[in-house]
Amino acid sequence: MEATEHLRLAALAARDAGHQLARGSEAARNAALAAMAHALRDGMREILAANALDVAAYHGSAAFLDRLTLTEARVEAMARGLEEVAALPDPLQRTLADWTRPNGLRIQRIATPIGVIGMIYESRPNVGADASALCLKSGNAVILRGGSDSAHSAKAINVALQRGLAASGLPPACIQVAPNADRAYVAAMLAGAGLLDLIIPRGGKSLVERVQRDARVPVLAHAEGLNHTYVHEAADPAMARRIVANAKMRRTGVCGATETLLIDRAVAPSLLPVLVADLRALGCDFRADAAARDIVPDLHAAAAADFDTEWLDSILSVAVVDGVDAALAHIAAHGSEHTDAIVTEDAAVAEHFLRGVDSAVALWNASTQFCDGGEFGFGAEIGIATGRIHARGPVGLEQLTTYRYLVLGTGQIRP
Amino acid sequence: MEATEHLRLAALAARDAGHQLARGSEAARNAALAAMAHALRDGMREILAANALDVAAYHGSAAFLDRLTLTEARVEAMARGLEEVAALPDPLQRTLADWTRPNGLRIQRIATPIGVIGMIYESRPNVGADASALCLKSGNAVILRGGSDSAHSAKAINVALQRGLAASGLPPACIQVAPNADRAYVAAMLAGAGLLDLIIPRGGKSLVERVQRDARVPVLAHAEGLNHTYVHEAADPAMARRIVANAKMRRTGVCGATETLLIDRAVAPSLLPVLVADLRALGCDFRADAAARDIVPDLHAAAAADFDTEWLDSILSVAVVDGVDAALAHIAAHGSEHTDAIVTEDAAVAEHFLRGVDSAVALWNASTQFCDGGEFGFGAEIGIATGRIHARGPVGLEQLTTYRYLVLGTGQIRP
Repeated sequence: MEATEHLRLAALAARDAGHQLARGSEAARNAALAAMAHALRDGMREILAANALDVAAYHGSAAFLDRLTLTEARVEAMARGLEEVAALPDPLQRTLADWTRPNGLRIQRIATPIGVIGMIYESRPNVGADASALCLKSGNAVILRGGSDSAHSAKAINVALQRGLAASGLPPACIQVAPNADRAYVAAMLAGAGLLDLIIPRGGKSLVERVQRDARVPVLAHAEGLNHTYVHEAADPAMARRIVANAKMRRTGVCGATETLLIDRAVAPSLLPVLVADLRALGCDFRADAAARDIVPDLHAAAAADFDTEWLDSILSVAVVDGVDAALAHIAAHGSEHTDAIVTEDAAVAEHFLRGVDSAVALWNASTQFCDGGEFGFGAEIGIATGRIHARGPVGLEQLTTYRYLVLGTGQIRP
Repeated sequence: MEATEHLRLAALAARDAGHQLARGSEAARNAALAAMAHALRDGMREILAANALDVAAYHGSAAFLDRLTLTEARVEAMARGLEEVAALPDPLQRTLADWTRPNGLRIQRIATPIGVIGMIYESRPNVGADASALCLKSGNAVILRGGSDSAHSAKAINVALQRGLAASGLPPACIQVAPNADRAYVAAMLAGAGLLDLIIPRGGKSLVERVQRDARVPVLAHAEGLNHTYVHEAADPAMARRIVANAKMRRTGVCGATETLLIDRAVAPSLLPVLVADLRALGCDFRADAAARDIVPDLHAAAAADFDTEWLDSILSVAVVDGVDAALAHIAAHGSEHTDAIVTEDAAVAEHFLRGVDSAVALWNASTQFCDGGEFGFGAEIGIATGRIHARGPVGLEQLTTYRYLVLGTGQIRP
């Protein structure tokens, strides 16, 4: 079937299924998640066999091959992930506001599902299972289009999840996958105004940019994290060393990793050499401005574009700045409004910095790597939103809901 | 200057101005609104003279001519509107959530401006002043592109508002208007990804649809309100008469007006004739299904498309239904998820209806015309959002904000 027509039918089925899901109870959603976990374990053999086909066909990097490969332990972890989502608080049972007007009308703003979500991803097969769980728990139907490299795995996982849904009495159309991984299906999803209510892209920069450029549907994008850690002159040196090393090197490929170190001129002569030594011991390389290289001469010189580069690697851009306002100006010019941190013992300067950056997540005396749904206490996340509306930062269950109003009257009419 | 280049420069200036605005105090924003009101009164003569040019050039409907025409009283009302917005609570001083993690990290979700908003509208000149006030109060910069019919008026109003901004010490670039009303500027705005953070279209269906179809920027659309009032068999007849008459006929051109009456078969024989008589006395015409015409034979027959038509006029579609689930099915098939009401004395049925519709605003025993920011207590509104994300229903100051996180640590690093 042609992609556009397939998507249309899938979305209509998803819409119906989503209504049923949204009107059902929390118990029904949690029972479905339990049944889905059970079905994943039950379908272990089929899932691993399908994954073996993907693995056999793959001829790329070893790093991706590792992410692509499923094992019993990884499928078991997926199943446990579903059970963990079931145990989270219900995002739909929230009254966000409740007030009564002078005319006696009572107005309640209540949480409600977004509707039908399209998820476009390129990464590991478990992303599909995780996203399915979060969407189901939040009352949304989801249509998943994974990468072509993991197409067999994605289908086998979906078959198991749909079996779980059916066993629990919820419509399998709540969670669907694209019939194949051709590019036409992505195009159909991006053109799916009225069919999909939201598209969440997860993957590399070019995928996210394409989705943002071409989508006719609202997008909750997970784009670049060009994050800064700013070491202020009043930083505790030991704390600064701990935080900078962690923020850059704990994991370099996550979107919360620090990409640029800004350090005050007043403390750079004493502190920068030890920060560099710490990071070098962890395997980090540098792209430094002239002032930093005056202090540590063997740093690589930064090209202008380096301060606009999200390395996602063991490379750190380094610039010396003259105080908090210069740091803010650098971040405003080069940052991506994702995650930025200050290290200082001066509360007034910290306050000025926190007010002055407009990042989704602004930290004081903590590692930028805390930008994460789990670390925020959300239990699980579907991504980190980098847009300005609806949700910013980690996207958990609450961010997968929207709201509506109930207005309770006693016969009021408008004058 | 070419539209694209003009927009780029305007948006960059707006971005800087918006940052200054957002970092300034509530007092500074309120003082600016007061100064803007003062400047409107001061510029009365210039504004009326500019408006006279628009009026002289206009050759359309008398209704639009009335909306286009400014008077001293209308300019004064605009000025008072700015003062009323100044008096509203500050939407930026809100901590939306505040919690502490087991590792001691304190996380605060705080309200913050969206950024640079593009407003595209076709209606009355005062819309520009109202939107300017709401954006300024919420810390957003705005670029306004009004209709060509009111271009002179819009510019004169903007000149006054910018004078007020300058007098209060805030950058005039917070509030800008398109240099002319050509269509290229709208196209430039729609293509303004990275320059504008949000576009709010207000106007007819074709404008809103064009913006939704072509925008590369998130859109907070104000689209169709195909609203239903459902009279359940357990409705209080007197209340039903009062509500239906008000919901349809108080003002027929507002998006909260009822377009379709659904009435239970059990009470239609007794109640429909009086509802029709009430509405006829107010000048209403009907498009009724066969069952309704069996009861009131001289109603016009409804064509299939009539139940999908937003009349915005003194016309009411009428259908007889068999109970609340049939009403819900009709609304799901024909509604626009805007505003729907039930009239009933049966609380269990009302609850079932309120849970079963997915409208932005669902009412029980009240007129659909209450779907309005003022009636909700928001003080003022920039429109009624009909999308699924960020905001639904009346868009007031709070809905013109987004959020970000502050994370306050004591040296935490991520394990």
